[in-house]
Amino acid sequence: MGQNGVEDEVRKFRVLPACDDEHGGVIVDMKEPMGPSVFQAMLKASLSQWKLEGKKGAWIKLPIELANLVEIAVKEGFWYHHAEPRYLMLAYWIPETKIAIPANATHQVRIGAIVMNDKRELLVVQEKVGKFQGTGIWKIPTGILEEGEDIFAGATREVKEETGINTEFVDVIAFRHLHKCFFDKSDLCFLCMLQPVSFDIHKQDSEIEEAQWMPFEEYADQPVVQNHCIFKHVKNICLAKIKKGHAGWTPLPITSLFDEQISYLYMKQEGLKL
Amino acid sequence: MGQNGVEDEVRKFRVLPACDDEHGGVIVDMKEPMGPSVFQAMLKASLSQWKLEGKKGAWIKLPIELANLVEIAVKEGFWYHHAEPRYLMLAYWIPETKIAIPANATHQVRIGAIVMNDKRELLVVQEKVGKFQGTGIWKIPTGILEEGEDIFAGATREVKEETGINTEFVDVIAFRHLHKCFFDKSDLCFLCMLQPVSFDIHKQDSEIEEAQWMPFEEYADQPVVQNHCIFKHVKNICLAKIKKGHAGWTPLPITSLFDEQISYLYMKQEGLKL
Repeated sequence: MGQNGVEDEVRKFRVLPACDDEHGGVIVDMKEPMGPSVFQAMLKASLSQWKLEGKKGAWIKLPIELANLVEIAVKEGFWYHHAEPRYLMLAYWIPETKIAIPANATHQVRIGAIVMNDKRELLVVQEKVGKFQGTGIWKIPTGILEEGEDIFAGATREVKEETGINTEFVDVIAFRHLHKCFFDKSDLCFLCMLQPVSFDIHKQDSEIEEAQWMPFEEYADQPVVQNHCIFKHVKNICLAKIKKGHAGWTPLPITSLFDEQISYLYMKQEGLKL
Repeated sequence: MGQNGVEDEVRKFRVLPACDDEHGGVIVDMKEPMGPSVFQAMLKASLSQWKLEGKKGAWIKLPIELANLVEIAVKEGFWYHHAEPRYLMLAYWIPETKIAIPANATHQVRIGAIVMNDKRELLVVQEKVGKFQGTGIWKIPTGILEEGEDIFAGATREVKEETGINTEFVDVIAFRHLHKCFFDKSDLCFLCMLQPVSFDIHKQDSEIEEAQWMPFEEYADQPVVQNHCIFKHVKNICLAKIKKGHAGWTPLPITSLFDEQISYLYMKQEGLKL
């Protein structure tokens, strides 16, 4: 090994192992424990190296077990990008140009499920936890989408979990956009129509106090439904659906322009052709 | 001051200042610098105290300047809840019961803006940055919602920023749901119709290579529009809008059941009455 080879080896040793991302940046996925001073030396060397290479964004993913290295990364100029229970992602912008690091996620997404049977009964629950606890209000099942879950999948899953009822997704008929729901994050709630394909209720013990098929008129007669905005709208949507087959939006699978990933476009199908 | 009073004083000194949240928990908003060992002693004392008081979730908001305290909080059993550039939020569940801490945000929200003038010309741009850079593709203006921003506001803002055109929001006509867009986060993109109220283009230099009013047929003749799923759908939606006034969803302001906060319910208004 010549002199240059040795220098390369030394440099390789001193630079943190990193993968290139798709946007001209590098990602360090820290997995092994490391002392703060070693980490600091390697991080300084890495930043110099990445700068020479013309890299743009630099990312460090630190598992929670390596919380002792957070302070060092911050000292070297990294800031927090996002965190999940088991890791913290830090970011750094290397060039002199305007920072072009994508923003963090801003929304949670929920579904509300309207499930009606042929007897004009609505599937409703009373909740054991959260804001509706103890209010005696009969409401439609609602829930938060899991990571990477589609709206149609989340709606059928939540109805099954809370009430034991099997359903088929029909369409999305409205959505609500609400801000400052938890910390500074926003909420999008998609109101979905579902067709029941089973009818025996087995309620979830942990979150649901009661569940039943309730005659639609009885649901609509609740004071909260008569007096409150969002409940009145849900009632009117149900009525429009019963009377006139009010059409919502259905998901069409589409592929991305840049890769083969499938996503869904929700829209009114009627009157449109591909 | 009696013996109990002194003990109370000592205890008060040793416990971190915290506010109650709305769900039976406590929030510590750390602002002043503190040594790791003092922080650790106070955090231990605080957790004992909160347990006695029957508190549920405990939150610590650590500004990035106090990154030296992250390791201590993790040692005492806290995990990461979320992070923004300037702070890290840590969480801990005190009772023996199932953890009921709300999930982190999972989605970014974007808008795509369809702006057509009376001459059947579509407002289109070529982008300087991102995936479309250098492709020569003429596309509709798109952009990410800012924190707490409404869809109708974000759509008019993005069109103004990228092209200088003033618009009025008409309706949302579709949305696309895509997963694994950045790390494990998902993306919801709302396709909006906007009515132009000014016509002289002043393009944004930083992100936009070119902007123009393009005859709709010329836009539709681009190979990417003829061959690609999402572009074909956008084209068909434009055509349906031109020919038949295809109605989308419009935002209705509604108040929350539990507070006076305004949110928006997007739905088809026709055939529904409040």
